[in-house]
Amino acid sequence: MSVTAAKGFAAAGIAAGIKENGNPDLALVVNNGPRRAAAGVFTSNRVKAAPVQWSEQVLRSGQVSAVVLNSGGANACTGPKGFQDTHATAEKVAEVLGRGAIEVAVCSTGLIGVLLPMDKLLPGIDTAAAQLSEHGGEKAAIAIKTTDTVHKTSVVTGEGWTVGGMAKGAGMLAPGLATMLVVLTTDADVDSETLDRALRGATKVTFDRVDSDGCMSTNDTVLLLASGSSGITPGEEEFADAVRAVCADLGRQLIGDAEGASKDIKVEVVNAATEEDAVEVGRSIARNNLLKCAIHGEDPNWGRVLSAIGTTSAAFEPDRLNVAINGVWVCKNGSVGEDREEVDMRYREVHVVADLAAGTETATIWTNDLTAEYVHENSAYSS
Amino acid sequence: MSVTAAKGFAAAGIAAGIKENGNPDLALVVNNGPRRAAAGVFTSNRVKAAPVQWSEQVLRSGQVSAVVLNSGGANACTGPKGFQDTHATAEKVAEVLGRGAIEVAVCSTGLIGVLLPMDKLLPGIDTAAAQLSEHGGEKAAIAIKTTDTVHKTSVVTGEGWTVGGMAKGAGMLAPGLATMLVVLTTDADVDSETLDRALRGATKVTFDRVDSDGCMSTNDTVLLLASGSSGITPGEEEFADAVRAVCADLGRQLIGDAEGASKDIKVEVVNAATEEDAVEVGRSIARNNLLKCAIHGEDPNWGRVLSAIGTTSAAFEPDRLNVAINGVWVCKNGSVGEDREEVDMRYREVHVVADLAAGTETATIWTNDLTAEYVHENSAYSS
Repeated sequence: MSVTAAKGFAAAGIAAGIKENGNPDLALVVNNGPRRAAAGVFTSNRVKAAPVQWSEQVLRSGQVSAVVLNSGGANACTGPKGFQDTHATAEKVAEVLGRGAIEVAVCSTGLIGVLLPMDKLLPGIDTAAAQLSEHGGEKAAIAIKTTDTVHKTSVVTGEGWTVGGMAKGAGMLAPGLATMLVVLTTDADVDSETLDRALRGATKVTFDRVDSDGCMSTNDTVLLLASGSSGITPGEEEFADAVRAVCADLGRQLIGDAEGASKDIKVEVVNAATEEDAVEVGRSIARNNLLKCAIHGEDPNWGRVLSAIGTTSAAFEPDRLNVAINGVWVCKNGSVGEDREEVDMRYREVHVVADLAAGTETATIWTNDLTAEYVHENSAYSS
Repeated sequence: MSVTAAKGFAAAGIAAGIKENGNPDLALVVNNGPRRAAAGVFTSNRVKAAPVQWSEQVLRSGQVSAVVLNSGGANACTGPKGFQDTHATAEKVAEVLGRGAIEVAVCSTGLIGVLLPMDKLLPGIDTAAAQLSEHGGEKAAIAIKTTDTVHKTSVVTGEGWTVGGMAKGAGMLAPGLATMLVVLTTDADVDSETLDRALRGATKVTFDRVDSDGCMSTNDTVLLLASGSSGITPGEEEFADAVRAVCADLGRQLIGDAEGASKDIKVEVVNAATEEDAVEVGRSIARNNLLKCAIHGEDPNWGRVLSAIGTTSAAFEPDRLNVAINGVWVCKNGSVGEDREEVDMRYREVHVVADLAAGTETATIWTNDLTAEYVHENSAYSS
């Protein structure tokens, strides 16, 4: 269903020959209206790929007619030629579809520092356009995969309207050098300002809190397009809830498919003085390589949780900290708590709770364990 | 030579039975004067082990008569009982040596959240005291090892005076959950204020810039003790240079013995607007798991260097960044530079230069690659 679950959209996914192995590598998503409202959120990395620089300009108008996405090359750190290539890609889509290039967003993912094979990409756009279909969502989702083992889609349905989408990658919006690309579509009749509020609110508590390996991509992009074809304008809160639900579902799928991971780790920080404190502490725990190794070894090593908390500027007293792993409070008041032998870590999902005992705020960060397979995949995934 | 290279010091290293495998685990370093001046630098982790809390108090007077160090247990996150145990350890050393407990610094390293076996540690102090020797430096250095494969010592000699020392662990002062403990001694006749300035100046550019895995210990401690027994007071700059040289040598040895590492990586940031910028960028590069994996795979993946730079707040323009790996400028002006095939990465030491083209300041951070062995060692090193 993916990006074509909502009415008013067509999509396609094809193999243009950008990937040397012949796998699908080019996706096209087209908004057939009547509305063409859109919002976007991009990587906060200051080294931005050419497609991000381009698409940020496109989104300024709040109007997107089409999104073209390629895997097999990030078009990042490619200089002026890389930007020209992105521009040419948008122009080509605009020409084929009879739209304006400034309404065509471009997303790329793959290796950094390599120019795209435009002799393959541009003809691929003709092929993709010829295959555009209201049932093309799955094929589009498949064509944006890189190291993903499965394609990721999600749909939430309201009263007569729908939000759906596709995602690839593993990482947070800011992280995941395995770039995260997400395209969401809706047939709800909402304007670009409403889309923008809903999307920013959703990404802040979903993709922003998915932190597989602490590395921030040059290409991360999340787009939300509205066709308005349902003719229904939901209440803003209801709509925002649906967008957040789709983002949360896709974010969880990204963590579940992270490179080399054997555990999905939910880091929940509770009783923080502020939400910012909760996020800072959650991220510090989620990025601690030693803890990630311990969890890989099914070792409930709460000392590594405490030492990660200790590096933050959050409000807490060391001797009031509590930590639970999979429901067992192995650390109480900053010291030894319940018997660590009670902790059952056999399953893929691991739940770490850090209680700061400093307030009432909370935040949840998702991450993965650190494995030999991660090292293998990322030392072999040559640039 | 280690801590007994300088005159006026005696040391011992014995197996007290704290480690279950019977390896040496208790070290004693005694300053026989005439001076007993000292300075110390401790972890910036807010979750501080009991021995750190104690030793910070000891150092306030600028006087240290003895240092007792144990491996086999960090005595961190052990509550009031843990602090009592550290206090009892200092009292025991004081009693055996006939000094005041408040002049006895205590250092511990090993697992977090486990109480020390005081029934073994306290009798061990008697044994160690009986073996104190002006030639005991090597044995002391051996007794503080945990996952270290070799013991680390260094000596620099001035005109009639000496600075020597020992280190264990891998990490920066702040990092390396494999706690870093360092004891330096000198027979130079210098006061505690001079020692403090020399030590802080040295750690800031040496141990503080050794960042094996970005994890900050609860126990990191660096002590510098002066006996004054040479009767010589060197010029302050000359003395500070010697302290910095010993710290740099020990820091390099720590990186060379980091857990599971196959590459030692020198990250040199040049042409930064400020030294703070250079350090921030260097640390960001040094902590990038994806880059560390790539270097493990001997892949000169400069895109990962750029994306790490892009996450910082340092002054730079993305299209003016340059990156060299082992002397080859693989990235020029933020884009593809010299042929990456020219980069020879066969050797253990790898040199990454990041040119920010934004000023004249520089900083060097040392780190390691990320390997399957690191994962193995830290998922098996059970808490």
